[in-house]
Amino acid sequence: MKPITAVEAVAAIEAGTLTSEKLVRDCLDRIAERDDVVKAWVHLDPDQAIAQARAADAASGGLLCGIPVGVKDIIDTYDMPTGHNSPIFEGKVPFGDAACVALCRTENAVIMGKTVTTEFANRHPGATTNPHNPAHTPGGSSSGSAAAVADGHVPLAFGTQTGGSVIRPAAYCGVVGYKPTFGDFNRVGIKMQCHSVDTLGLMARTLEDIALFRAAVLKMPPVRIDRDIGRPRIGVCRSPVWDQAEPETKALIEATATLLSDKGASVVDVYFAPQFTDIIDDHAAITGFESVRNYADERLRNPDKVSDELMSGPMKRGLAVSFERYVAAQRKATAFKAHVDSLFDKVDLLLTPSAPGEAPKGLAATGDPVFNSIWTLAGTPCVTLPAGTGPNGLPLGVQLVGLRHHDDRMLSLAAWVAAHLN
Amino acid sequence: MKPITAVEAVAAIEAGTLTSEKLVRDCLDRIAERDDVVKAWVHLDPDQAIAQARAADAASGGLLCGIPVGVKDIIDTYDMPTGHNSPIFEGKVPFGDAACVALCRTENAVIMGKTVTTEFANRHPGATTNPHNPAHTPGGSSSGSAAAVADGHVPLAFGTQTGGSVIRPAAYCGVVGYKPTFGDFNRVGIKMQCHSVDTLGLMARTLEDIALFRAAVLKMPPVRIDRDIGRPRIGVCRSPVWDQAEPETKALIEATATLLSDKGASVVDVYFAPQFTDIIDDHAAITGFESVRNYADERLRNPDKVSDELMSGPMKRGLAVSFERYVAAQRKATAFKAHVDSLFDKVDLLLTPSAPGEAPKGLAATGDPVFNSIWTLAGTPCVTLPAGTGPNGLPLGVQLVGLRHHDDRMLSLAAWVAAHLN
Repeated sequence: MKPITAVEAVAAIEAGTLTSEKLVRDCLDRIAERDDVVKAWVHLDPDQAIAQARAADAASGGLLCGIPVGVKDIIDTYDMPTGHNSPIFEGKVPFGDAACVALCRTENAVIMGKTVTTEFANRHPGATTNPHNPAHTPGGSSSGSAAAVADGHVPLAFGTQTGGSVIRPAAYCGVVGYKPTFGDFNRVGIKMQCHSVDTLGLMARTLEDIALFRAAVLKMPPVRIDRDIGRPRIGVCRSPVWDQAEPETKALIEATATLLSDKGASVVDVYFAPQFTDIIDDHAAITGFESVRNYADERLRNPDKVSDELMSGPMKRGLAVSFERYVAAQRKATAFKAHVDSLFDKVDLLLTPSAPGEAPKGLAATGDPVFNSIWTLAGTPCVTLPAGTGPNGLPLGVQLVGLRHHDDRMLSLAAWVAAHLN
Repeated sequence: MKPITAVEAVAAIEAGTLTSEKLVRDCLDRIAERDDVVKAWVHLDPDQAIAQARAADAASGGLLCGIPVGVKDIIDTYDMPTGHNSPIFEGKVPFGDAACVALCRTENAVIMGKTVTTEFANRHPGATTNPHNPAHTPGGSSSGSAAAVADGHVPLAFGTQTGGSVIRPAAYCGVVGYKPTFGDFNRVGIKMQCHSVDTLGLMARTLEDIALFRAAVLKMPPVRIDRDIGRPRIGVCRSPVWDQAEPETKALIEATATLLSDKGASVVDVYFAPQFTDIIDDHAAITGFESVRNYADERLRNPDKVSDELMSGPMKRGLAVSFERYVAAQRKATAFKAHVDSLFDKVDLLLTPSAPGEAPKGLAATGDPVFNSIWTLAGTPCVTLPAGTGPNGLPLGVQLVGLRHHDDRMLSLAAWVAAHLN
């Protein structure tokens, strides 16, 4: 049976046919049944969740009237530890909620628990498995959130993206992942990795749920998704890293372009200007320079508690980036943002891979963000939609990219695409 | 006697004629003598400072080899409370240092203590007085840092700026204040007010000290300030809010322009394009929208512990800003940044007021940031230099603005100006 969506649950709760307590108990049952394998949660206290659900039922109202939300464990919660998957922070309870958590509570959500993250939302993985096959990674760094939503533990969960940490795990787990226009979502109380690109994102099982969740996080009335938006102009952007896509991903993008053209979209190929074909190197320079400095305290006082993977990889590379190189990359990023904006003079939406292919086998790595980092740097709104399965029977996704500050329109255009994908 | 600068102290320590312990004890003596009146410090533990100084002497080396630094009390310190001048956080000790603090410790600085801030770096003032006249405000929100540096308590201190919270108090107290290009300085562990504009800044008594301090915060080798940079092209930017300048400020800007022209600078008038004359309204829309959401946790769980001034002023105005208005302001800010960049096609440096006039009388308000907010939004590097006194004998400052990402050059150009001001 398909698990209930947030929009369906809100309607049922408002109609009096469902309570938050019943919904949360159903979710807890699903978690109890499955989490020994999926391992999506690092903190989950059923009594705490049920108490919140009862309070939500008593209060009633709010955009998220009693809907349970999973929170990636680099996001602060005043009533639950926030460990960042790091021994430095294990068991530590912050003084307050991250703004995004408080905004959900303001809308009467139930904060279900904390979902597994890689160490500091970087690469060193947690224990979470892919709910479609536990021998495969769920992707990362928002591993637990993607797996929890995919496996029906909660309808909604928070992720964050510096490279590809929302879109990639969402695609690997077969859910909808959304990264908003850079700057729209508040980052207060979220462990920073790289301030120029870190973006709070959302996971759900439908675009309608994303729109509802987004309204709560933005503290604004929900905007209706309108899939009757007309026939979109779609630009197929294979991107400078197309040769890193697996055959199934290349085939999926080509087939999707043909399908959408058949359904009435105008479809054209779109390319970056030549000066931006190596823009992924600028993403690496910016994130490297910033992350080394962001972790100055951990590096100084607890270097032995930082993983070798982080210390000898990103940190070492980051230390090698000079300030001059950083500034040059920032300047180029500014130009790149304007360039990507200009692509939308001729199209409404870009179609591009969500990930190289299916979720790789093994849990020691979380897959490659190569198809995501460029859009994180561009600051564009992005969404990944589930789009069938690959040769191993694991989910594939297609990524849709919109014009900055036009997230509402992007979600409606994505709904038009989703209606034809399925 | 003029207090020792950081650059002088580093030289003396390296030469073996001064120790960090002696320097810190001298600073503590000055504080003991003066802080009953100035009230710059909210946390100061002499034993803790002296222990750090002894450790710095033992370790030796580092860019800030034993130099004491004041830290605004919205910036996290693992070994001192960080209270944000809010009863919600009073006495709370964070889990770790802010990145900027850890970067200073990495360079062997002594973290002297925490300096008074307004509530959450907004308007509700602390107890600090202007060291030149205790009946006058030191400015804010970085009140304690400006007063402490001006009064010889420490050579260096951190401030932060959302509107005018570094440049204005520095000008009111007669010190050098520096706001870097937006994005260069790390904000991890600093209480956020508005993520699109909040900027960490520095206070010192000389530009050379600013350059040294900046190198430590950027984790890079110091860049020598070169006042023999040639005759700069200076644009006098009276800005759209010129009519809010006091007569002494207007006279100071005109006299400075004439003086610098006499000294060999080419001086022209510079104006914003007409579509940006109301850009300060966009700063207000962006900061209003963001701050309401940034304080979501405080608003939800501790509304009675937030000042009436903050709740009924900025919060109320922020709640009235729609998402559409916010997005429009963000788009305009992007265009404004490019416009301000373009002003530097014809000039090297802009000359503009640091504040409307001298520090106002009374401690209930910290003065008007109207001459600063536009530059905070523009993301440009800014510096204020002491430039004589006004009718009440209190300091005046001139603000110099540089091209984004050219902070080194701006500091050298400012040194050329400073050499002719004095």
